[in-house]
Amino acid sequence: MTSSLPKISTQPSVLPPKDSRRRVSQALQALQESICQKLEALDGKSTFQEDRWQRPDGGGGRSRVIKQGGIFEQGGVNFSEVWGHNLPPSILVQRPEAAGHEFYATGTSMVLHPHNPYVPTVHLNYRYFEAGPVWWFGGGIDLTPYYPFAADVVHFHQTIKAACDRHHHEYYPAFKRWCDEYFYLKHRQEPRGVGGIFFDYQDGRSQLYHGPEKAGAAAQYSQDVGKLPARNWEDIFAFIQECGSAFLPAYMPIVEKRKDLEYGDRQRDFQLYRRGRYVEFNLVYDRGTIFGLQTNGRTESILMSLPPLVRWEYNYTVDSGTPEAELYDTFLKPQDWVSWPL
Amino acid sequence: MTSSLPKISTQPSVLPPKDSRRRVSQALQALQESICQKLEALDGKSTFQEDRWQRPDGGGGRSRVIKQGGIFEQGGVNFSEVWGHNLPPSILVQRPEAAGHEFYATGTSMVLHPHNPYVPTVHLNYRYFEAGPVWWFGGGIDLTPYYPFAADVVHFHQTIKAACDRHHHEYYPAFKRWCDEYFYLKHRQEPRGVGGIFFDYQDGRSQLYHGPEKAGAAAQYSQDVGKLPARNWEDIFAFIQECGSAFLPAYMPIVEKRKDLEYGDRQRDFQLYRRGRYVEFNLVYDRGTIFGLQTNGRTESILMSLPPLVRWEYNYTVDSGTPEAELYDTFLKPQDWVSWPL
Repeated sequence: MTSSLPKISTQPSVLPPKDSRRRVSQALQALQESICQKLEALDGKSTFQEDRWQRPDGGGGRSRVIKQGGIFEQGGVNFSEVWGHNLPPSILVQRPEAAGHEFYATGTSMVLHPHNPYVPTVHLNYRYFEAGPVWWFGGGIDLTPYYPFAADVVHFHQTIKAACDRHHHEYYPAFKRWCDEYFYLKHRQEPRGVGGIFFDYQDGRSQLYHGPEKAGAAAQYSQDVGKLPARNWEDIFAFIQECGSAFLPAYMPIVEKRKDLEYGDRQRDFQLYRRGRYVEFNLVYDRGTIFGLQTNGRTESILMSLPPLVRWEYNYTVDSGTPEAELYDTFLKPQDWVSWPL
Repeated sequence: MTSSLPKISTQPSVLPPKDSRRRVSQALQALQESICQKLEALDGKSTFQEDRWQRPDGGGGRSRVIKQGGIFEQGGVNFSEVWGHNLPPSILVQRPEAAGHEFYATGTSMVLHPHNPYVPTVHLNYRYFEAGPVWWFGGGIDLTPYYPFAADVVHFHQTIKAACDRHHHEYYPAFKRWCDEYFYLKHRQEPRGVGGIFFDYQDGRSQLYHGPEKAGAAAQYSQDVGKLPARNWEDIFAFIQECGSAFLPAYMPIVEKRKDLEYGDRQRDFQLYRRGRYVEFNLVYDRGTIFGLQTNGRTESILMSLPPLVRWEYNYTVDSGTPEAELYDTFLKPQDWVSWPL
C-alpha cells in the first residue's frame, strides 16, 4: 500500500524547514489570490475589495470581500499572519508543549453566501501554527446546501476525497468524520450542512485525530487505523496545498450548474431561515470566531463569515414530502456521500 | 432617610417564607399575563400563541409568541419554572453555598422586535432562585432604540428610576451601572442599547453588586454606598413586582408615540443592521442564552429573543451628521439619562 502513497516519507522530520513560515504564508496567499480571481470571473458582476490591516500585538492580514455580486450576495476570503507571546488556553490544552513559547500562526479562511438558494454556501480554512518545539497544520472545507441535490454533494465529497487519497487513504475517512462532529449544532441536534473534511493539530504523528471529543467517531476511527506511516512537515504541507487546490474543482461546477435556476419567495425564505443556523454555529460554537472576538481580533474580518441577510422564526417547521423536508431528513444527517447512489 | 423607604425592614429574614415558590411563580405568571394582554391590545392585529412545554429533567414553562403583528414583527414573553439536582458551575462560582443542593428557578423573560425602526426593541427578565441555604432574585429591563429620540430614553429611565426609588434610592444608580456593563459587546466596543437596570444575586445582603467584574463601575458604586439597611425576602420580592409593573408605563408610551411615524428603506436597513448586534450579544455573551443552549433548554423558547430579520454588512459605516451617527455618538455610550436635558 505504501507504493501508492509516494508522498509519505518513511522518516518524520521533527523540525520544520528553516523557511517554513515564508513558504506556508506564500502558499496561503497564493491560494487566496487564485480563489479570488476565479470567483470574480465566475461572479461576473462584482469584485473583491481588499482591506489590509495590522494587528497591534503583532502581524496583520488582508481581507477581501465581495458584495452584491451576480452570484455572491456576500463572500469573504481572508489571509492573516500573526504572532505573539502566548497561545490561548484553549489551544494549550491540546498542545501543552507550546506553553511559554512565542507563537506564529497563518491562515486563509473563506465563506461564500450566494444569492440563489439552489447554490450552497461554502467554507474553507487552512492554517499553520508554530510555537516553540511544536508545529501543526489544521483546516478543512465544508458545504452547506439549502436544497437537496445529491449529485452536488457527491461531487463535492468525491473531489475532496480524491485530493486526500493522493496523500493518504486514511485522511478522507478520518477527516470526514471529524468534520461531521465539529460542524454540529448541539442545541438543534443538527449538523450545519453536509460536511466535507476538518482536521487540526496535524504534525506527522501517527494519530490522526487530536480533538477534545475523545469518544467521537473520528477519535474511534483514528484509533482503529492504528499506526500510520510517518509523515514529515513536507508531507503535510503538500497535503494542505492539495486540499486548497481542490476547492475550485469541488465548488465551481456546483455553482455553474445551479446559478441560473429560477427560484421564488419560498426558496428565498427557506435559505434565509437556514442561514440562521450558520450564525448560531459561528457565534455559539466556532472556536476560531469566539477566540477571535474575545481576544481583540479584527471583528469585521472575523464576522465577515455571517450571512448578509438572515431570518429567525419561532417554531418553524417544514411540510413533509417537500424538498425542504428532504434536506432535513437526508442531507442534515451524516451520510456516506462518496458511495451515494445517484 | 429610612422614613422615606417604608418597604425596607430593619431585620433581614434569612429564610424565604414557606410559600415563596408559589408566590413568586404566581406573580411572574401574572406579569406575563398582563403584559401579553396589553401588548395584544396595543398591537391590534396579531395575538400571542401559547406553547406549553415540559422539561425532561424537571419543570417546564409556557412560551407566548406574537408574529407579524400590526406593531410587533416578532415578540416573545416566556414563563418558566424548573428544578433539578445541580446548578451549573457558572452560577455556583457566585453562590458556592448552593453546591450539592437541589435548585428551583422561575422566571419571566421577554423580547419585542417592532416593525417600525422608530420603535425601540425592549427586553425584560425577572427570575428567582432557591438552592439549599440560599435564595436570590435577579433580572432587569433594557431598551435598544434604532433612532435617537432622547425623550423616549429619558422617559424609559425615569419610569424605571421611580419604581426603584419607591424601594431604595441606591437601587437605580447601582443597577443602571450594572446594566451598562452587562449589555456590552466587547468585540464592538459598544453597549447593546441605552440600558435600563440589571441586577443579580439580590438576597438582602448589604452589598448590591454581585457580579464577575470586580473592577467595574457597578462594583465600585456598590462599595461606595457602604452598608445598606437590611432587606428581607419580602422587600426584594416587592421590588421585583414593582419593576415588573413598571414595564408597561415605561415602554407603551414610546410605542404609541412612534408607531405611526413613516419610514423608508434607509431606516429599515439600519434597523436590520443594528439587529445584528442583538444577535451577537445574545449568542456570544448572554449568560442565560448560552447556558440554556448548552444544557438542553428548550431551544425555540431560548432563541425566540432573536430578531425575525437581520442583516450583516462588512465594514458598514454611518455618515456623520445623520441620525444614525447620532445613535452611535450619543446613545450608544453610557449616559446619565434621568438628568438628560430635553
